[in-house]
Amino acid sequence: MTATHLTLGQLAERLGATLRGSADKPISGLATLQEAGPDQLSFLANAQYRKFLVDCQAAAVLLTAADAEGYGGDALIVANPYLAYAQLSHLFDRKPQAAAGVHPTAQVAADARVDASASIGAFAVIERGAQIGAGVTVGAHCVVGARSQIGEGGWLAPRVTLYHDVRIGRRVVIQSGAVIGGEGFGFANEKGVWQKIAQIGGVVIGDDVEIGANTTIDRGALADTLIGNGVKLDNQIMIAHNVQIGDNTAMAGCVGISGSTKIGRNCMIAGGVGMVGHIEVCDGVFVTGMTMVTRSITEPGAYSSGTAMQPAGEWKKSAARIRQLDDMARRLKDLEKQLAAVTSSANTASDA
Amino acid sequence: MTATHLTLGQLAERLGATLRGSADKPISGLATLQEAGPDQLSFLANAQYRKFLVDCQAAAVLLTAADAEGYGGDALIVANPYLAYAQLSHLFDRKPQAAAGVHPTAQVAADARVDASASIGAFAVIERGAQIGAGVTVGAHCVVGARSQIGEGGWLAPRVTLYHDVRIGRRVVIQSGAVIGGEGFGFANEKGVWQKIAQIGGVVIGDDVEIGANTTIDRGALADTLIGNGVKLDNQIMIAHNVQIGDNTAMAGCVGISGSTKIGRNCMIAGGVGMVGHIEVCDGVFVTGMTMVTRSITEPGAYSSGTAMQPAGEWKKSAARIRQLDDMARRLKDLEKQLAAVTSSANTASDA
Amino acid sequence: MTATHLTLGQLAERLGATLRGSADKPISGLATLQEAGPDQLSFLANAQYRKFLVDCQAAAVLLTAADAEGYGGDALIVANPYLAYAQLSHLFDRKPQAAAGVHPTAQVAADARVDASASIGAFAVIERGAQIGAGVTVGAHCVVGARSQIGEGGWLAPRVTLYHDVRIGRRVVIQSGAVIGGEGFGFANEKGVWQKIAQIGGVVIGDDVEIGANTTIDRGALADTLIGNGVKLDNQIMIAHNVQIGDNTAMAGCVGISGSTKIGRNCMIAGGVGMVGHIEVCDGVFVTGMTMVTRSITEPGAYSSGTAMQPAGEWKKSAARIRQLDDMARRLKDLEKQLAAVTSSANTASDA
Repeated sequence: MTATHLTLGQLAERLGATLRGSADKPISGLATLQEAGPDQLSFLANAQYRKFLVDCQAAAVLLTAADAEGYGGDALIVANPYLAYAQLSHLFDRKPQAAAGVHPTAQVAADARVDASASIGAFAVIERGAQIGAGVTVGAHCVVGARSQIGEGGWLAPRVTLYHDVRIGRRVVIQSGAVIGGEGFGFANEKGVWQKIAQIGGVVIGDDVEIGANTTIDRGALADTLIGNGVKLDNQIMIAHNVQIGDNTAMAGCVGISGSTKIGRNCMIAGGVGMVGHIEVCDGVFVTGMTMVTRSITEPGAYSSGTAMQPAGEWKKSAARIRQLDDMARRLKDLEKQLAAVTSSANTASDA
Repeated sequence: MTATHLTLGQLAERLGATLRGSADKPISGLATLQEAGPDQLSFLANAQYRKFLVDCQAAAVLLTAADAEGYGGDALIVANPYLAYAQLSHLFDRKPQAAAGVHPTAQVAADARVDASASIGAFAVIERGAQIGAGVTVGAHCVVGARSQIGEGGWLAPRVTLYHDVRIGRRVVIQSGAVIGGEGFGFANEKGVWQKIAQIGGVVIGDDVEIGANTTIDRGALADTLIGNGVKLDNQIMIAHNVQIGDNTAMAGCVGISGSTKIGRNCMIAGGVGMVGHIEVCDGVFVTGMTMVTRSITEPGAYSSGTAMQPAGEWKKSAARIRQLDDMARRLKDLEKQLAAVTSSANTASDA
Repeated sequence: MTATHLTLGQLAERLGATLRGSADKPISGLATLQEAGPDQLSFLANAQYRKFLVDCQAAAVLLTAADAEGYGGDALIVANPYLAYAQLSHLFDRKPQAAAGVHPTAQVAADARVDASASIGAFAVIERGAQIGAGVTVGAHCVVGARSQIGEGGWLAPRVTLYHDVRIGRRVVIQSGAVIGGEGFGFANEKGVWQKIAQIGGVVIGDDVEIGANTTIDRGALADTLIGNGVKLDNQIMIAHNVQIGDNTAMAGCVGISGSTKIGRNCMIAGGVGMVGHIEVCDGVFVTGMTMVTRSITEPGAYSSGTAMQPAGEWKKSAARIRQLDDMARRLKDLEKQLAAVTSSANTASDA
């Protein structure tokens, strides 16, 4: 779908935008306000970048009507410039499109069902009973385990592993190195020795989900691990067995969610957050970066933990003081009592 | 070993359990007390779930003798229901079993020794001098480096990399994406430029170890990195060069252990913990989630760091106050001195 | 380049070291002072290990002139023993050397340019327009995406993914499982639903870079993600889209850098550090392990956050107190005021 010779008029039409300027102007790409050249389209989505409009060299800028008033150059006027940029970005994507068909080197089990419009890459392995939907791309070196399913329009980068019995919805994007359906951390301790518990559940992933590079989603111990529709998971996220994630929740890189934890819809979990197992987080929660979530969250809102960065010398003092904090709290209480006694005796004295 | 038509009597026999109910009852699977249907076996391992026994629809429940007294339905009475569940779980595992033999697409070096009972998957690469033991499964796309060894009964998911000179014991399970024997982070700084140090040690892994998806274990710089028997490592764990981990220690996801750190036996390291290099942790230590371990631990017990989660607004205040903590501690001490002076002069005054 | 029958004299010559002892002594390997046997070379790089010289069994030791005075055995006297060890380490590396040429199973696009001296491993996929320089090793199962380039002398372990339009400099080492050029976490929120933004930038990596196992570096959203010359990235690091990292900066394992953050030259970022997006870190910054970097750093120096580990019981008290810290600070201020009032009235009284 890459098109490097579009005109400003064509882009306006696609967006339903109001065009200000020359419809014939050729647009070869997208760039930031600071970097855009005279054949590139730019956008203003954040008020703090408005200052860069003055010297902007772009062919045209995606602007709200209000911002367009203060700008003299060509513009595409839209309600939401960032969303308009998101839409147009796909026109300028140089990501190669895979051709339909099964690569001659791929190994496809006799009873696997691969839609004729799907593309199966070099050295891919499609195991028994797997089902690959219409328009799906399975990259080179992917493994689709026994009975696993990928719904129509899915796109798997090279080198994605789906274990057996993983069910993936429509239009799901999975980046390279992701592992879906691995055996979760299930062991029973018998006199100090860990006995493995077979992980007999699967993974069910909704529609329009994105899964980042080297992210891992374990299969359920008994029931399935569940990822809702529209969930977006960044790179190197770890989702343990039997976790449930509600629709349209997004997680940034390096998040770790322990087993059986249930996260609501429309949450935003920032990078490096860790959650213990067996808790529930309600809808609409925002957890800031590197927070340690050790209990359920029952009210929407923003949550945090951790300490602010300091120069290392000062930090050492703070860290030492934190260990004395319980003692400090007791001494503070003592002081309050003593001072109350002093004040009271002084009052008594003055009363006397 | 999957068997979906077992009877309750057969399961009792396998476990040496006391059967209460119909020996002929067919059992098709395992499920939790809340989710089990009339052809599934369930178990009660945690007292807080005892309340679910009342409405339990399971064909039968794994119970201790004490818990069985309060339950009217069919039961398998055992000493440790969780362990019994662990044992039975393998009977209901739908994980495909690989057939013995070398897949025609696999590349096996002429001098590699592959036991006739081992299974080598599609596109696997077995390099010079490697040895694959009896009953081992090497998944599709695995690489077994030169002179590396996998002991009998091992199971490698698709897409596991063993570099050269990695020695793995018996019955070791390695999940997809794991990398064993990568070159550790060894560089000597020469006037601001990092010079690489070849990592000439290997990795030695004991028996009955499990290694999670996308976990990485680096080879030693000089001597070997050592993972003891029965160690269980979850997903996305990072073990740096020359780390030593004692027998039966378990680590949850996203743990990072820096170079040359030595961890004892029977430790439990929760998710997201980080340890600095060159320290020692004794046997029997439990480290709670996301703790930063910056010094050796010489006494068994539980250890923690970090701050508790708060609503973001309150957290901002706490974080700001932590930076003032050293100052607060000084002021507290001053107050104590001043108050002592006031009290003392008041006493003097009243004495007078 | 492995040579297991070198003599002490040959090693002295290679280093330009002063030889003390027998030039003919055969050296078969390297080891620590404690572990070296009579055919191994050792080194003293850290004063705290000087005590091990007494019982050292090594054939010879790399020493500074000063340290050599106190040692009676054979020695190679050099200015920087650690650097000398780094140089010699490569002579004893058993890492297999790949032969030049394209493995018959590899898939190389017709228009890809692969230097005749390069080695392309089994099942590797080289896509359209890719360029592989002189002496490059591309391991088994690697994917080199369309138009991507690897400069001369590069070494890719098995199973590395380069997406399309990734440009890699000379002598770059990439460990297994790394993913370069994945699609960054770019979504525009439209009424609670995330709309994907195509990631149309690339990744540009300088010369002499090392990238660890399972590390991920995302492609730029618009412009390129940039990794400077001599940068060393350990395992499981996450570099988001449009990050820039300056020359010779090193990062230990499990670091996460959010989008568009810019890090200077010669920084050292310890394990588990997280940085928010859109900040700048100047040259020469050292960030200690697991620090949360939430603002730009404009002065060189060391920075930290987090709390020190405590026994879990004590930690619970500290963590509870931290949540009361704002209250404690207010009460402390109150006390100061009250005490000042008491003191002042006492003074007034005594003045009176």
